Amino acid sequence: MISWNNLDTLESFKELGTVKKVSVKTALGGAGGAERVKKYSVPMACGMSFNYAAKAVDDDVLSALAKLASEAQLADKFAALYNGEVINTGEKRLVLHQLTRGQLGDDVVADGVNKREFYVNQQKRIAEFAAKVHDGTIANGNGEKFTTVVQIGIGGSDLGPRAIYIALENWAKKTGNFKLEARFISNVDPDDAAAVLNGIDVAHSLFVLVSKSGTTLETLTNESFVKDALKKAGLDASKHMIAVTSETSPLAKSSDYLAAFFMDDYIGGRFSSCSAVGGAILSLAFGADVFAKFLEGAAAEDKLAAEKDALKNPAMLDALIGVYERNILGYDCTAVLPYSQALSRFPAHLQQADMESNGKSVNRFGEPVSYKTGPVIFGEPGTNGQHSFYQLLHQGTDIIPLQFIGFKNSQIGTDVDIQGSTSQQKLCANVAAQIVAFACGKDDDNNNKRFEGERPSSIIIGDELTPEAMGALLSHFENKIMFQGFLWNVNSFDQEGVQLGKVLAKKVLAHETDGALKVYSDLFGI
Amino acid sequence: MISWNNLDTLESFKELGTVKKVSVKTALGGAGGAERVKKYSVPMACGMSFNYAAKAVDDDVLSALAKLASEAQLADKFAALYNGEVINTGEKRLVLHQLTRGQLGDDVVADGVNKREFYVNQQKRIAEFAAKVHDGTIANGNGEKFTTVVQIGIGGSDLGPRAIYIALENWAKKTGNFKLEARFISNVDPDDAAAVLNGIDVAHSLFVLVSKSGTTLETLTNESFVKDALKKAGLDASKHMIAVTSETSPLAKSSDYLAAFFMDDYIGGRFSSCSAVGGAILSLAFGADVFAKFLEGAAAEDKLAAEKDALKNPAMLDALIGVYERNILGYDCTAVLPYSQALSRFPAHLQQADMESNGKSVNRFGEPVSYKTGPVIFGEPGTNGQHSFYQLLHQGTDIIPLQFIGFKNSQIGTDVDIQGSTSQQKLCANVAAQIVAFACGKDDDNNNKRFEGERPSSIIIGDELTPEAMGALLSHFENKIMFQGFLWNVNSFDQEGVQLGKVLAKKVLAHETDGALKVYSDLFGI
Repeated sequence: MISWNNLDTLESFKELGTVKKVSVKTALGGAGGAERVKKYSVPMACGMSFNYAAKAVDDDVLSALAKLASEAQLADKFAALYNGEVINTGEKRLVLHQLTRGQLGDDVVADGVNKREFYVNQQKRIAEFAAKVHDGTIANGNGEKFTTVVQIGIGGSDLGPRAIYIALENWAKKTGNFKLEARFISNVDPDDAAAVLNGIDVAHSLFVLVSKSGTTLETLTNESFVKDALKKAGLDASKHMIAVTSETSPLAKSSDYLAAFFMDDYIGGRFSSCSAVGGAILSLAFGADVFAKFLEGAAAEDKLAAEKDALKNPAMLDALIGVYERNILGYDCTAVLPYSQALSRFPAHLQQADMESNGKSVNRFGEPVSYKTGPVIFGEPGTNGQHSFYQLLHQGTDIIPLQFIGFKNSQIGTDVDIQGSTSQQKLCANVAAQIVAFACGKDDDNNNKRFEGERPSSIIIGDELTPEAMGALLSHFENKIMFQGFLWNVNSFDQEGVQLGKVLAKKVLAHETDGALKVYSDLFGI
Repeated sequence: MISWNNLDTLESFKELGTVKKVSVKTALGGAGGAERVKKYSVPMACGMSFNYAAKAVDDDVLSALAKLASEAQLADKFAALYNGEVINTGEKRLVLHQLTRGQLGDDVVADGVNKREFYVNQQKRIAEFAAKVHDGTIANGNGEKFTTVVQIGIGGSDLGPRAIYIALENWAKKTGNFKLEARFISNVDPDDAAAVLNGIDVAHSLFVLVSKSGTTLETLTNESFVKDALKKAGLDASKHMIAVTSETSPLAKSSDYLAAFFMDDYIGGRFSSCSAVGGAILSLAFGADVFAKFLEGAAAEDKLAAEKDALKNPAMLDALIGVYERNILGYDCTAVLPYSQALSRFPAHLQQADMESNGKSVNRFGEPVSYKTGPVIFGEPGTNGQHSFYQLLHQGTDIIPLQFIGFKNSQIGTDVDIQGSTSQQKLCANVAAQIVAFACGKDDDNNNKRFEGERPSSIIIGDELTPEAMGALLSHFENKIMFQGFLWNVNSFDQEGVQLGKVLAKKVLAHETDGALKVYSDLFGI
C-alpha cells in the first residue's frame, strides 16, 4: 500500500540529517580517491554511466539514502505510475509519458483504449507520413519536396524537441540520416516568427502546429502569423501544415491541416518529447527510424529506473543525492553542464522539466510544505561555461552542486591535433579537471588564488551522443525529477503557477485593468 | 579620499537592516499602487526607463540605500575608475572599458598613450577595414566579396558580441544595415567548429580570431581547426583571417592575418564588447556606423551612471536594490527576463558579466568576506520562460528577484491581429501582467491555485531595441555589476577562479595525473 507523506515526516529523512557529513575534498583528494571514482558509479543504458564519486556522500550517507528511498516507497510509486494510477492528483490524470517508449508494467487502459497501443499507433502514423514527405508523395502545391519543417509550439512543445533536434542534427548529417532542416517558432514576440519566416523557403516548408488543448494563445497567434505569410506568398496553408494535438481539441479534425497526430492529457507538455510532440518533427527531420532509436534508449533507461535498489538505479540515486543537497546540505541551485556543444539547449529543457515540475510550495494534498522543494536549474555547455560563470562556481560564496555530462567521442569526427592532443581530448580533459578542481580545490598563500574545494558534482559519461544515448539522457532526467517529486511529496505533473499571469494578461488586452496594472499597461501603450 | 571597506562594516548597511521591510503585495496592490508605478521610475538613455515599483522598497528603504551609496562612495569610486586609477588591484590594472565609448573624466594616459585616442583609433581602423570589405576592396583570393564573418573566441570574446549580434540582426535586416552574416565558434568541442564550417561558404568567409593574450587554448585550437579547413578547401588562410588581440601578443604582427586590431589589458574579456572584440565583428556585420550608434547609446548611459544622486542613477539604484535583496532579504539568485526574442542570448552574456565579476569570496585586499556576494544569474526570453520555469518563480519555495526588459515596438514590424490585439501587444500585456502577478499574487481556497505574491521585480522599458538602446542596456548592466562590486568590496575585474581548472586540464593532457584525476581521465580514454 502506497502512502504519500511529507519528506520531513519520514524517519529515514530525520536519520539522514544525523549522518556524519562527508568532505568531498578529503574523500576524492585522499588516498582512496582513485578507488572511489571506480566504485561510485552506476551503469546506465547505451554504455553510459552515472558517476557520483565527487558528491558529498560515503557508504553511510548512501545507506541512509537507500533507507529513505525505501521508506518513501520510490520504486512502488514509480510502479503505480507506470501501471496507470492517477498520480497527477491535482488534475486527476494518469501520467503516461514512459508508455510512449515502452511498457514497464500492466496494460494501461484509459478512455477505452490501450494507451501503449494508442501511442505506438501515433508513431506508426507519423512514420508513414514522414516517409511520404521524404519520398515526395506528400509535397507542396507544386508537387515539390519539402525541405524544411517548422515547429510552432511553446514550452514543452518547443524546448524538448528543439534541444533534441540540436543534439542530433550533426549526428544525422554525419550518418546520412538528415532529411529536413528544422526550425522553431515559439515566442509571441512577432520578431520570432518573422525572423524564422524570413530565413526559410516558405514554399518548401512544412509547419507542425503543436498544442495539446488547441487553445495555447502564443501558438495559435503564431499559427495565424504563419498562415498570413503563406497566404501572402500565394500558398495554400492547408497544404503546408500538420497538427499535433489531443483528439478532443478543435484542431483534431480541422481541414486546415494535412494531418493531425495525437497526444493526450496523460502526457504533460514538459514530458512530451517522446510523444507525437517530439515524434512528428524529429521523424520528419531525421526519419522515423532515428526517432525509434531515440525511444529505445529512453525505454532502456526507464527499465533501470524501475530497479528497486536505489544504489543500482541511476535516476533514483541522482534524485536522492539532489534532495540530500537541497534539504540537508542547504544548496539552492543546480548547474547542468554538458561538455558537448550538441547539448547546448538541453539545460534549457531541463530547466523547464525540473523547475516547472517541482517548483511547488504545497504537497499533493494542497498542504503547504515546510521544506525547500525544486532548486533553480541553469547551465551552458562546457568549455564555454568555464570562460563564463565558473568563476562563481569555484570561488563564490554559495556552493552550487554540478551535474556534468560528457562523451568520449565527438559526433562529426573532424578534429585537429594541437600541442599533442585533439580538441575532443582537450574537451574531455577539461571536464575531468573541473570535477577534481571543484571537489579538491587548491591552497594558496594568496587568498585570491585559493580554492576551497568542496563543490560537489556528478558526471554522466557516454561513448557518443547518439539517438539512443539522447533518449537515455532524457529519460534519466525525467525520472530523476519524478523521484524528487515523490520525495518532496509534491505533484510534479501540474503547473497551476502559470495560470495567474495568463488571466492578468487577458485583462490587460481587454483593457479591464486598474491600479498598478493599468499604469504598467499604459507604459507599454496598450 | 576613497576608502575601501567591507559592506558589513558600513554604518549605513547596519542601518539598512533595521529599516522596516516592505510588502510589495501591499505597496503595489494597494490604493497607492498606480501612483507608485509612475513615481518609482528613473530615466535611462534612449528614452528608456528603469522602473522599480515592484521592488520591495519604499521611501525609507530608498533613503537608507542612498545613504549606503554615499558611505560606500559609489560615485567617487566610479570617478576614480574612469579617471584612470588602478581599480583592478589584483592584476594591478586600470579598468577602461567605458573609455571605448566616451570620456567621462580626465585624460587617461597609460603605456605612454592617451587611451581614449587609442580606442578611437582602433575603431577608425576597423571602420576603414570594414568599409573595404563591404565595397569589395578587400576580398577573397578570387577577388570575390566576403559574405560571412566568423568570430573565433570564447567567454567574453564570444558571449557579448554574439548576444549583441543576435539582438541587432533583425533590426539591421529591416533597416538596410545588414552587411555580412555572422557566425561564432567558441567551444573546444570539435563539433562546434565542424558544424559552423559545414554550415557556411568557407571560400567567402572572413574569420576574426579574438584572444587578448594570444594564448587562449580553446581559441588557438579552433583557429587551427579553421586553418585546416581553409587549406583543405585550397584557400590561403592568411587572406581569410584577421586578429583582435593586444599589441604585445604573438598575434599582433603575424603575417598570418590580413589585419590586426587591438584591445589592451585594461579591458577585461567580459567587458570587451565595446572594444575591438565586439567592434570588428559588429562593424563587419552591420557597418561601422551602426557600431558607432551602439557605442553612443552606451556612452549616454555611462553618463547617467556618473550621477551622484543614487535615486537618479539607474545603474546605481539597480545595484543597491540588488545588494539589499541579496544581503538583507537573503535572496540567492536573480533572473533576467527580456520580453524580446532578439535578446535571447543577453541573459547568457549577463550571466558571465555578473557571475565572473562578483562571484568572489575575498575582498579586494584578499581577505575573506563574511557576507554573500554575487548571486546566480539566469534567464530566458519571455514569453518562453512563462511556459517553462515561471512555475517555480511563482510558487516555488525560494523567492527569486526578477529583472524584466521590454519594448513597446518590435524590430521587424510584421505583425498579426488576433482576438483584437497584435502579437506585440500580447507580448507587452504579458510582461505587465507578470509583474503584477509576481508582486501581488492571488488568494484561493485551493492552496494549489494560491499565489503568495511578494516576488519583487524591476523592468527596463524602451521604445524599440535599436543599436543605441542595446548599447545603453549593456552599459546599464556593466555599471550595475561594477557598483555591486564596490558595495561588496570585491575586485570585479579579475577571475582567478578560472585558473585551477586550466592547470589541471594541462596535467591531464600531459598524462601527469594520479589518484582520482587519473581515473577520471581513464574513463574518457585520455
